[in-house]
Amino acid sequence: MRVVDLIEKKRNGLELTKSEIDFIITEYTNGNLPDYQMSALAMAIYFQDMTQEERVHLTTAMVNSGDQIDLSEIEGIKVDKHSTGGVGDTTTLVLGPLVAAVGVPVAKMSGRGLGHTGGTIDKLEAVPGFHVEITNDEFIRLVNTNKLAVIGQSGDLTPADKSLYALRDVTATVDSIPLIASSIMSKKIAAGADAICLDVKTGNGAFMKDLKDAEALAQAMVEIGKGVGRNTKAIISDMSQPLGFAVGNALEVKEAIDTLKGEGPEDLTELCLTLGSHMVMLAKKASSLEEARALLIEVIDNGQALATFKTFLEAQGGDASVVDDPSQLPDASYKISVPAKADGYVSEIVAEQIGVAAMKLGAGRATKESVIDLAVGVVLHKKVGDAVKKGDTLVTIHSNSENVDEVMNVIYDSYTIVSEQVDAPTLIYKEIH
Amino acid sequence: MRVVDLIEKKRNGLELTKSEIDFIITEYTNGNLPDYQMSALAMAIYFQDMTQEERVHLTTAMVNSGDQIDLSEIEGIKVDKHSTGGVGDTTTLVLGPLVAAVGVPVAKMSGRGLGHTGGTIDKLEAVPGFHVEITNDEFIRLVNTNKLAVIGQSGDLTPADKSLYALRDVTATVDSIPLIASSIMSKKIAAGADAICLDVKTGNGAFMKDLKDAEALAQAMVEIGKGVGRNTKAIISDMSQPLGFAVGNALEVKEAIDTLKGEGPEDLTELCLTLGSHMVMLAKKASSLEEARALLIEVIDNGQALATFKTFLEAQGGDASVVDDPSQLPDASYKISVPAKADGYVSEIVAEQIGVAAMKLGAGRATKESVIDLAVGVVLHKKVGDAVKKGDTLVTIHSNSENVDEVMNVIYDSYTIVSEQVDAPTLIYKEIH
Repeated sequence: MRVVDLIEKKRNGLELTKSEIDFIITEYTNGNLPDYQMSALAMAIYFQDMTQEERVHLTTAMVNSGDQIDLSEIEGIKVDKHSTGGVGDTTTLVLGPLVAAVGVPVAKMSGRGLGHTGGTIDKLEAVPGFHVEITNDEFIRLVNTNKLAVIGQSGDLTPADKSLYALRDVTATVDSIPLIASSIMSKKIAAGADAICLDVKTGNGAFMKDLKDAEALAQAMVEIGKGVGRNTKAIISDMSQPLGFAVGNALEVKEAIDTLKGEGPEDLTELCLTLGSHMVMLAKKASSLEEARALLIEVIDNGQALATFKTFLEAQGGDASVVDDPSQLPDASYKISVPAKADGYVSEIVAEQIGVAAMKLGAGRATKESVIDLAVGVVLHKKVGDAVKKGDTLVTIHSNSENVDEVMNVIYDSYTIVSEQVDAPTLIYKEIH
Repeated sequence: MRVVDLIEKKRNGLELTKSEIDFIITEYTNGNLPDYQMSALAMAIYFQDMTQEERVHLTTAMVNSGDQIDLSEIEGIKVDKHSTGGVGDTTTLVLGPLVAAVGVPVAKMSGRGLGHTGGTIDKLEAVPGFHVEITNDEFIRLVNTNKLAVIGQSGDLTPADKSLYALRDVTATVDSIPLIASSIMSKKIAAGADAICLDVKTGNGAFMKDLKDAEALAQAMVEIGKGVGRNTKAIISDMSQPLGFAVGNALEVKEAIDTLKGEGPEDLTELCLTLGSHMVMLAKKASSLEEARALLIEVIDNGQALATFKTFLEAQGGDASVVDDPSQLPDASYKISVPAKADGYVSEIVAEQIGVAAMKLGAGRATKESVIDLAVGVVLHKKVGDAVKKGDTLVTIHSNSENVDEVMNVIYDSYTIVSEQVDAPTLIYKEIH
């Protein structure tokens, strides 16, 4: 088998076989297939797409390229959730305790990552004492006991995907549906999920700006999931403005606590109930989405969701008293109001720019070496569709520096206020089965 | 300027500017632009093509990536000829002396190359004493004196093309019209040609099997030539069977001598007169193709073409007496007839397979290290359209080994003999201005 012939085959729009794809990924992982052939192949895939069978073979080959997490000792159907990413996305912090409280085992392997805010682990580390340095055995024991644990990334998962992703990033082959879908799905599958619930974002703050593209990606991932025997559902949700109010690390933990108490932002709550219902169904803990949603509302109302969060934090060394007294969370020195300059209605909030504002305050990492300030970030008070009066606070900046002129300008630039009334955007566009 | 953005631009079907293309080629030549980005770009070009302006900029950038031969001290318009390659293509050996005899300066830089037979230099080295190790000054002096000289490749011409060509070869991006056309044209221009005459081959023995593809390539090269201010003409000629009768090194020298005497194969003679007429016109040595052809026929008939060949060989150390007595050329030990197995008409000769037969006899190089046997090769006696009787010699094998069973089988496989009469194929399909 010659790699150049396989590139030509794909270039000519033909279907690669399982053994051809296995050969490519194995040789690439071993360093025998050079980047210059892989990038040419990726560009050919960009233009010629891949069939459903090819996508499944590619995903499987990438899973097999490295370690796979064995969660078989955890009782029940392990459901993993994945979001394609956006601004102020606190859903993971809420969903973990929420679905765990109704008996869905959540065995979360998480990273720190680069972005506007830290990853799930960074956010949780805002809770004094909390840590993810636990052994695999401890991790499995905790999930079996409490239905929820978070562990830092370990092992060499999907090395082929890691290399390919880095290569795609510099060769203009990122935005290819089969390559994105197989990349995401391979990571989820290697991390041991039995079933996968996907939150595909669309809108200006999302990778997929366009609803049609988001649908295509969601469909592709659901089909790959089914193709490899992992039940997978996707919803397409709005990221035309930040989700919830808080963008930051401790700020999002606080918002998650509010939401678990039933006092969270409406959009975040609704999205968590929707995703949570699917997760409960995927875990076969309810027989209909309505029943699943009722269970979730019940554990919010009766305090079990919040209690599960506390137990989880304590089990991993965290001081759970922050849940009852969030003022113990890291707190920024300055809270600076960004007042509306005129009366009207919010017609747009450029999510990406709100993320940039949080980043500039120090909430996120630009490089792996960046140190995150857990206290800082922004809290929105007005969202799209809201009426505002001149002087109303649009946003509160949480900063450890007094000089926030630049951040304030970014926030003003991201808000559009118009005179006519505006509808709030649709939150959930579609469910893909 | 970020390379990834330029790849994306081309991927999205947009036109790259001159400065963008210059940047890409300069950085690639300097080793700052890695192969994995160049191959992704090449694949994007494969799918999105290049505009006429882009092709001209790419060609110019590749010319500028290395040395350029300065032929300005040679009087007259230097016309270079290029063939896209085929089997038994003796035209260069004939055309040099032929057009030089009517006053067209031919300053040929030539290589050895890999293939079924050697390159022009290998063939000429079949003449005892002939060599191409002459200085640039000597080369220029000889062209000014005799209108014809051949020098071996020197200098670092079009290094960007060399690297890109090698990369395309292993990334399934060879057969892209803009990349092929700019590769060929950059080499011709860097070698100092004022005007270029192209022989684009089509048919089973050519790179472009299809007439439509050959036309597109010819058109692309002619337009690049015009775009960079080098008058360029192309003809599209048949390579559905080998050209002429001889395939080998000394065998082709012998055939060239025959042709310069007016006793060569009909197709080779006609192709040389056609290409030669264009070269004479490009050099402005005649005012019409008819006049140019008449001049060429005149120098064949009056012996000047042959005399020019002799003078040329002698000037570069060769024993010109071989021209009058070709038996002094390297001669194979065995001449083995391949007889027809039945009566009929030749309907097909797979040119590529005849080339393979010559290669197996030792006429060509498989790798740079291979040693060529100048004496061996094949001579066809029957071509497409010819009537044959059982026992007639189809081909004579010139071999230095007695065992030619394998070669004979290849030759039999390449010939198809049918019972119905067959027309000879069209030799010259089209002229592209």
